[in-house]
Amino acid sequence: MPGDIVTRELKEPITLVEYLYRRLYEVGIRSIHGVPGDYNLQALDYAPGCGLTWVGNCNELNAGYAADGYARIKGIAALITTFGVGELSAINAIAGAYSEYVPIVHIVGQPKTASQRDGMLLHHTLGNGDYNVFVDMNAKVTCAVARLNDALEAPILIDDAIRECWIRSRPVYITLPTDMVQQKVEGKRLETPIDLANAPNDPEKEEYVVSLILRLLHEAKDPVILVDACAIRHRVLAEVHDLVEQSGLPTFVAPMGKGAVNETHPNYGGVYAGDGSKKGVQERIEQSDLILNIGAIKSDFNTAGFTYRIGQLKSIDFHSSYIRVRYSEYPNLSMKGVLRNVVQRLGKLNIGSVPHVSNSMPPQELESKDQTITHAWLWPIVGQWLQENDIFITETGTANFGAWSTRFPKDVTAISQTLWGSIGYSVGACHGAALAAKDENSNRRTILFVGDGSFQLTAQEVSTMLRQKLRPIIFVICNNGYTIERFIHGWDQSYNDIQQWNFIEIPSAFGGKRDEYQTHQVKTRRELTDLLANEDFSAGQYLQLVELYMPQYDAPLALESTATASAKQNQRK
Amino acid sequence: MPGDIVTRELKEPITLVEYLYRRLYEVGIRSIHGVPGDYNLQALDYAPGCGLTWVGNCNELNAGYAADGYARIKGIAALITTFGVGELSAINAIAGAYSEYVPIVHIVGQPKTASQRDGMLLHHTLGNGDYNVFVDMNAKVTCAVARLNDALEAPILIDDAIRECWIRSRPVYITLPTDMVQQKVEGKRLETPIDLANAPNDPEKEEYVVSLILRLLHEAKDPVILVDACAIRHRVLAEVHDLVEQSGLPTFVAPMGKGAVNETHPNYGGVYAGDGSKKGVQERIEQSDLILNIGAIKSDFNTAGFTYRIGQLKSIDFHSSYIRVRYSEYPNLSMKGVLRNVVQRLGKLNIGSVPHVSNSMPPQELESKDQTITHAWLWPIVGQWLQENDIFITETGTANFGAWSTRFPKDVTAISQTLWGSIGYSVGACHGAALAAKDENSNRRTILFVGDGSFQLTAQEVSTMLRQKLRPIIFVICNNGYTIERFIHGWDQSYNDIQQWNFIEIPSAFGGKRDEYQTHQVKTRRELTDLLANEDFSAGQYLQLVELYMPQYDAPLALESTATASAKQNQRK
Repeated sequence: MPGDIVTRELKEPITLVEYLYRRLYEVGIRSIHGVPGDYNLQALDYAPGCGLTWVGNCNELNAGYAADGYARIKGIAALITTFGVGELSAINAIAGAYSEYVPIVHIVGQPKTASQRDGMLLHHTLGNGDYNVFVDMNAKVTCAVARLNDALEAPILIDDAIRECWIRSRPVYITLPTDMVQQKVEGKRLETPIDLANAPNDPEKEEYVVSLILRLLHEAKDPVILVDACAIRHRVLAEVHDLVEQSGLPTFVAPMGKGAVNETHPNYGGVYAGDGSKKGVQERIEQSDLILNIGAIKSDFNTAGFTYRIGQLKSIDFHSSYIRVRYSEYPNLSMKGVLRNVVQRLGKLNIGSVPHVSNSMPPQELESKDQTITHAWLWPIVGQWLQENDIFITETGTANFGAWSTRFPKDVTAISQTLWGSIGYSVGACHGAALAAKDENSNRRTILFVGDGSFQLTAQEVSTMLRQKLRPIIFVICNNGYTIERFIHGWDQSYNDIQQWNFIEIPSAFGGKRDEYQTHQVKTRRELTDLLANEDFSAGQYLQLVELYMPQYDAPLALESTATASAKQNQRK
Repeated sequence: MPGDIVTRELKEPITLVEYLYRRLYEVGIRSIHGVPGDYNLQALDYAPGCGLTWVGNCNELNAGYAADGYARIKGIAALITTFGVGELSAINAIAGAYSEYVPIVHIVGQPKTASQRDGMLLHHTLGNGDYNVFVDMNAKVTCAVARLNDALEAPILIDDAIRECWIRSRPVYITLPTDMVQQKVEGKRLETPIDLANAPNDPEKEEYVVSLILRLLHEAKDPVILVDACAIRHRVLAEVHDLVEQSGLPTFVAPMGKGAVNETHPNYGGVYAGDGSKKGVQERIEQSDLILNIGAIKSDFNTAGFTYRIGQLKSIDFHSSYIRVRYSEYPNLSMKGVLRNVVQRLGKLNIGSVPHVSNSMPPQELESKDQTITHAWLWPIVGQWLQENDIFITETGTANFGAWSTRFPKDVTAISQTLWGSIGYSVGACHGAALAAKDENSNRRTILFVGDGSFQLTAQEVSTMLRQKLRPIIFVICNNGYTIERFIHGWDQSYNDIQQWNFIEIPSAFGGKRDEYQTHQVKTRRELTDLLANEDFSAGQYLQLVELYMPQYDAPLALESTATASAKQNQRK
């Protein structure tokens, strides 16, 4: 058999699936998310031997969300599902990761290659013998596809896929037919790590653009920095940090850029999202004569409904694969090198004033005797309670819009899905993020704010958190349904209502032991401040779930203005 | 504006979404499954006015499964999701309906047509301006796509899509941009119902084939009938019933054909699935000299791993779009007309013996004093307890293989997903089926058997059942995880384990009131027979959830033989 000849010629034969797993380990993955299925079971046998822990989520969509959350903390994640049923259940999570630039290696256990060739009528197929249909679907929401049908080329395909996943910061799709799992491949390749570095910029081109940027920066009377999601996803936070520090320029973030810069830094001026910005911020940015716009994603929800007003003539846009100075585009140039180069040759710039950002209460809230927990009151309070290094997850809805009003301590990582906006995401992501922190042996707290409606989509992942002994602090905002939708359309329509759950019974129903979790009900401001002041609660020693009661028709101002813009967008023009 | 001119020319202007809903009502739909999202909210406003109830499921995958279950009872179902996030969450359910021939009208609320044309960077997009990508994915798992971008053609597209959905018994995909919802279309078309009849067969061709079939039937010494899934899906059960009745021939079903014929009929001989058949059945069929094979789907799990041994030379295959007599194929010929014609001219045939089928216990079980609830003991007991007209749902795993050993009373409808086999399906399907029975004002009981692992994927749909005041009887088989997987691979591997839930706490956690549900724990044979003998329990007056404890390593014989064949399939050849 040709296979045997090849095996004899291998210098260091290694099982294909082990090769794959060792590469996942090499790039930092320690846990694999997913659900077992008969086309992936054999592959699962090999995980522990390669230093990887199999998570075993409750379902594949949740597993995909968890992988997304894991990648946002650990840099990259892996997901294993089974052919057809499993991979399609996860595809919304994969599309979200594609949309939001999150690197997930999605491995799909397939029927053996001979069955695929023969178009056999197996379970988990459409019954039409087409074994390409799911690959084709996934190709639309991944940046690379590797079909491991041949042992000789498999290691090359694996290395390329993982490299693409990292560099482009998007999901990739790898098929693993059952008969390929144990084939032998060349293990000697593992001695050379996968090259994860960006291709260097053309020096002359970089020099040209950097000089241009420096000239404009020095000519500007009042330049500012605006940081957005792609600065996080394409890993230029060190460069951004040095730019902020050394330039002394006023620095702002877009909503999706929350957490990218140190919000306690004196240069930090707040969140810019057009009409959704806090008073003072919008004017400050829109009146600047030069905006260094780093990693922008100008989507509707990231700009309070396209109310972003920064003229292109005043902009320098930094992206992973191109730079744009006013209207001049410079393709095939990565911001990483350009930013580093700019920082090194910065010199002295004109520095304007910075709005002051704090979590102190506005006077009317301070003086109020109303005990109702409103959004205007809540989010600064949350900011006062957060600690350095926290992982702070907010669901699409009142929570992620509310977080615009929370000034973070240093080194907080914010996780939200502002562009893709798939409700339920945050519960899975919370599990993945908490697990990533555990895999890093860090003591980072993982804190989730999720609405009662959104929680119901993916609630069972609380079970996986308990199973994995994770200790997130989960606030379920109990406000009778889909409040974000009410602000868009259907203010008091029953379709925006939900079944009222007894959320505090969930951990026990999902098998939590009495010493593994705590639950709380909070209905007044005093109850919340007391809870947050409780050291045992804040220490996060066990999984904690808080029912946080808020009015049905209350929302953060940022959500109100975005929803109004969104409703207009939806109307017949 | 051209729109106004068109409106003035309409004889009976009606809002587009009302037109769509009135057509759904016309074909029998009374409830619409789905989850609200900002691109479908406006459309939801119109449901009550058209006699349709909005369900409001907990998530879209569950909604898709529920629509599938609804369609299997009510004939057809509707599902509304939102662009991107919602439709992709449901796509596994849609693929399952495609695979298993279940008609679902899937309506997707989209951003307005102008936004799509301009490729705007809206939430729920991939951020690349591509508004076709999700349509392209759905086109692969639906039998028709209708994009309602133009008011003039929309009613035609709707009518065609619903007709295709019904006739081909598969899902269709309809896009509804927000700006199209309230456009006016011609309401006069509604006076003519959509033609849901099959195109009649070519009379000469039908005559030719029927004569051939009759000749072979009369020549045969020992003909038998074998009924499978497509007989149910393509609605020929009345023809099959008459054929069984008038021919007197021994009649068998494939696993996916369970419920297609009256299993208390003296002609009924049991379930045929190759080596997975009960003793006597396999020999009886495989030794027959002519098999009328009606609506067969010869998939691995429907044939106990391709151990089906019926020679083509002894077969007449009846399908929705072709007939095959031995090796002669007759395309574009529907079994409905052919079967009716055969029945009318049947004459007297040679009738052989029929194996006796009952739910009586084998002597070794009857005599056993062991109180452990085993599969060998359970499934005949369930058959003794089932009543006429029950809806009997079994999850892929021990339950749907166990059901092969349950002889049904008359008019039981069996629901299972043997070909697609997506675990978790049955919980959503249970909700949809129970709702369909309610919509039909019938008192049919809906009974679900689901494993503890499978239940966890979609558990939150119990919440929707409570919300809709449905009263299914749910047995959760507590056997510590994915037993079907253990029989394929990983007998005691931890990846086949699950978090142990307290299932009986679920209804309360999901907001059930004390008078809305009951829960039970059953660990011995006596406890189960006592429970089943309890009239209050069997009356199904409220939602009931039973924890049914069974051994981790016990499975029905049919599953054991199928899993062994499947494991072999997966191995390297």
